[in-house]
Amino acid sequence: MDKTKKQWQLNLYKIINESDTIQGRVFDIVMVVSIVLNSIVIIAETVEPIRISIGEILMTLQWVFVVLFTFEYILRILIVENKKKYVASFFGVVDMMAILPAYISIFMPSIRLLALFRTFRLLRLFSILKMGRYVEASGNLLKALRASRAKITVFLFTIFFVIVVVGALMYIIEGPENGFVSIPESMYWAVVTVSTVGYGDISPQTPYGKTLASMLMIVGYGIIAVPTGIITSEIALVDRKAREAKTSATCVTCGRKSHKEDAVYCDKCGGKL
Amino acid sequence: MDKTKKQWQLNLYKIINESDTIQGRVFDIVMVVSIVLNSIVIIAETVEPIRISIGEILMTLQWVFVVLFTFEYILRILIVENKKKYVASFFGVVDMMAILPAYISIFMPSIRLLALFRTFRLLRLFSILKMGRYVEASGNLLKALRASRAKITVFLFTIFFVIVVVGALMYIIEGPENGFVSIPESMYWAVVTVSTVGYGDISPQTPYGKTLASMLMIVGYGIIAVPTGIITSEIALVDRKAREAKTSATCVTCGRKSHKEDAVYCDKCGGKL
Amino acid sequence: MDKTKKQWQLNLYKIINESDTIQGRVFDIVMVVSIVLNSIVIIAETVEPIRISIGEILMTLQWVFVVLFTFEYILRILIVENKKKYVASFFGVVDMMAILPAYISIFMPSIRLLALFRTFRLLRLFSILKMGRYVEASGNLLKALRASRAKITVFLFTIFFVIVVVGALMYIIEGPENGFVSIPESMYWAVVTVSTVGYGDISPQTPYGKTLASMLMIVGYGIIAVPTGIITSEIALVDRKAREAKTSATCVTCGRKSHKEDAVYCDKCGGKL
Amino acid sequence: MDKTKKQWQLNLYKIINESDTIQGRVFDIVMVVSIVLNSIVIIAETVEPIRISIGEILMTLQWVFVVLFTFEYILRILIVENKKKYVASFFGVVDMMAILPAYISIFMPSIRLLALFRTFRLLRLFSILKMGRYVEASGNLLKALRASRAKITVFLFTIFFVIVVVGALMYIIEGPENGFVSIPESMYWAVVTVSTVGYGDISPQTPYGKTLASMLMIVGYGIIAVPTGIITSEIALVDRKAREAKTSATCVTCGRKSHKEDAVYCDKCGGKL
Repeated sequence: MDKTKKQWQLNLYKIINESDTIQGRVFDIVMVVSIVLNSIVIIAETVEPIRISIGEILMTLQWVFVVLFTFEYILRILIVENKKKYVASFFGVVDMMAILPAYISIFMPSIRLLALFRTFRLLRLFSILKMGRYVEASGNLLKALRASRAKITVFLFTIFFVIVVVGALMYIIEGPENGFVSIPESMYWAVVTVSTVGYGDISPQTPYGKTLASMLMIVGYGIIAVPTGIITSEIALVDRKAREAKTSATCVTCGRKSHKEDAVYCDKCGGKL
Repeated sequence: MDKTKKQWQLNLYKIINESDTIQGRVFDIVMVVSIVLNSIVIIAETVEPIRISIGEILMTLQWVFVVLFTFEYILRILIVENKKKYVASFFGVVDMMAILPAYISIFMPSIRLLALFRTFRLLRLFSILKMGRYVEASGNLLKALRASRAKITVFLFTIFFVIVVVGALMYIIEGPENGFVSIPESMYWAVVTVSTVGYGDISPQTPYGKTLASMLMIVGYGIIAVPTGIITSEIALVDRKAREAKTSATCVTCGRKSHKEDAVYCDKCGGKL
Repeated sequence: MDKTKKQWQLNLYKIINESDTIQGRVFDIVMVVSIVLNSIVIIAETVEPIRISIGEILMTLQWVFVVLFTFEYILRILIVENKKKYVASFFGVVDMMAILPAYISIFMPSIRLLALFRTFRLLRLFSILKMGRYVEASGNLLKALRASRAKITVFLFTIFFVIVVVGALMYIIEGPENGFVSIPESMYWAVVTVSTVGYGDISPQTPYGKTLASMLMIVGYGIIAVPTGIITSEIALVDRKAREAKTSATCVTCGRKSHKEDAVYCDKCGGKL
Repeated sequence: MDKTKKQWQLNLYKIINESDTIQGRVFDIVMVVSIVLNSIVIIAETVEPIRISIGEILMTLQWVFVVLFTFEYILRILIVENKKKYVASFFGVVDMMAILPAYISIFMPSIRLLALFRTFRLLRLFSILKMGRYVEASGNLLKALRASRAKITVFLFTIFFVIVVVGALMYIIEGPENGFVSIPESMYWAVVTVSTVGYGDISPQTPYGKTLASMLMIVGYGIIAVPTGIITSEIALVDRKAREAKTSATCVTCGRKSHKEDAVYCDKCGGKL
């Protein structure tokens, strides 16, 4: 590989992976818009009346996006140092899964499979996560979630435990004659109930079942409060730290520390913070 | 425009837009009561038994309110400096939309359209928002919501992303034979489920669908905790600042700062705060 | 009224209204147990199989409680200074409403009315609120709720506004043919949806209705976070104040202030706090 | 009992009840895996298609687990000092209930009873709670819940009170003809509604019933906020204390107090904290 080719690669790398340059920014916007439009087309195509009236147009648009995404996929392979690592990475697999089924569908024109494969392209929505700004904006939220990881695991384990026990009890109490045909089915009912969704496709019929269900709902009240408490406490902490970090910023001009939260200029020397 | 007319305009302006004078207060109350009564009349008229028994009276009342609102609309145009700006403003459009359909309905007596146009007058409820006190009272709440705008946007984007992906997956897993007739329909189901509303008009029938739905509900648990955490953290902060603002009030008599939260008199010189 | 009678009155007053003496405590417990048992009897009597098998026994028990409550009501009138004030007070009316219908039912033996009047006796449950301990224990919770009264009013007003507007919109979009037979009915649907109850007795059928409903649900997410935020913020504040009140307790022996939260003895002079 | 046997008992005791040694750790893992696998087998057996295809294999696996749990139960009895205390303890009863029904089922081969007895073995899931790590990890959460015990009791009492009163009112308003066949049934509906589950198996049909239900839902909004507020406030406090405990750790080398939250080394003398 000669030097000039490397320079060309480097420029492309900057455009595709960074958004400091104008070209990089344009590339980002074009790709995000394409991904969103592609998703809308795929979603629209599953609606019967739309498929009948403008199905042909949507079909053409889909191939345009497939070609575009294929082109992007090839570019990405060309510019990265470690090609194998990219292809095997999460986003590499997502990028490939979004285009491969389209090419397979040419040789396997089963209508059911076609529909299924098309929806795979929705996976490209994950690519938007690569865009730095979104990740940056959600920084504090992610920090709060990560900090409360241990507590949430304990919470989820407890929930799962409650669901297994209540599911088994309801299977015994209500039985298959009232829609609780198996323990997994009963556990599905317990999830629907404790999460307060309550479809009503399965619901207790006997007085004992109704009493147990009522107790589960009242307890579910307290349960729903726990993750909220965990995350609220963490968000409040992360927020406080972010504010403290700002107020304890050191003035580069005079060295003064501890400024007001909304200070833009140092209140001792007037230098910009 | 001569000087005396301007004085007359100014007085009217004060009555209509401010509530310092007795006349201004009376005008405010009359308009709020009219808007609320008008809304009750419109709502009541859609109820079959009420329409049959006292439909005529309600019809008459409606015209009384239309005339009143028309009178107010003309007054408002007369008193404002920049008439075009008011007519094109949000409240200007709302005020007009609330009366125009009534006059159109005279010339187009289609019953269906009539009902539709009448409900437009409910828009006048928005006018209550103009009343200063309500906006003032909700000050801290709005501040908290505005401060958490960025985080809520990230949260809504994440929710939307989850709904698209889960909606597409459920469309593939369950398919039209189980009520998931299209991806938009599946997305509607996902919204109904993740918000824990759970109508039960569409619900998963296959074991795989039920498993995915259960996972969505458990995740929905954590998800519902996030906006609560964000807003709680902000409300707590805004509350604390409001309290601190009060405790750091400077005494006008002696210049002493940092008083107790519920202090009415300065604890140094006894001067009223 | 002679002196001796007053003493007798005073003793009874202490027994009935205070719980410092043993007799007062026994009276309290007997009344609470009677009220709870009476409630269970009334609730049980509405269940068909129970009424058929032990209806006679329940009927007898009811009359026992009626006589007991009548006796208590007469006692209360006898001992209070201002008899008119008690009879017209909230608890006075509750106490009377709980026994009067039973006597009326002797002369008006309509079965439907009988059932209705009996349930009135459940009102006596409110009397438990009179017992000091319960009110005391819920002190901090009530303080938090009272402090956030203004914000919750603004919140409820906003919710009501959203329900009227969305209800009217859904009535126009879906119409009587899809179950939205009137604006009040649509408003009922909006309440069921925004509170995430979601019975599914009425649910949107058209694409536009489903889109608006989805938006309401997502917004409902944010909305449900607001009262939680308000109350959490207040409870946290009330808790903090309660702790601070304890830590700032002044030692009666040496006058030292600001002790540790769990301190029982003064850490300066060793005197009990 | 001679000394050597005691040593053998002691070693077994360490393996079974502690997880410091390698053997103890292996024993823990084997038991947890067995309990989980056993649960999966029992749950799977209630699913009709699975029972038909691999029912024999599941049956054999169940007996393997019964023998294993029996062996463990005997071991536990052998090693503990106070054998009666263990047998009568919560975990002793759970351990016995998990194996006894299997042996009874040999002599009472009723199919219905068999299924019921098998699910009893799910009780062994509770044994996982004995494993120290899980309890340790959930320490702070439990502390927060325990601290808010008093407030949650008041809250649950209030909820129960609301459910009784609203249940009785709805029974009077709607009556048996609309599905509210008794007060307990109405109370079940009230629980389903106030917990926002909303199955829709019973729902108000009359305008008055719908109005009362709407009020209950709106109030339920505020109600659901209360336990969240309580638990959030406590979790935030417990978290703060845990952080403060860390930051106020005294350095064993130099005696310095108040370190940074994430400090691992003392910032004065460099000694490990």
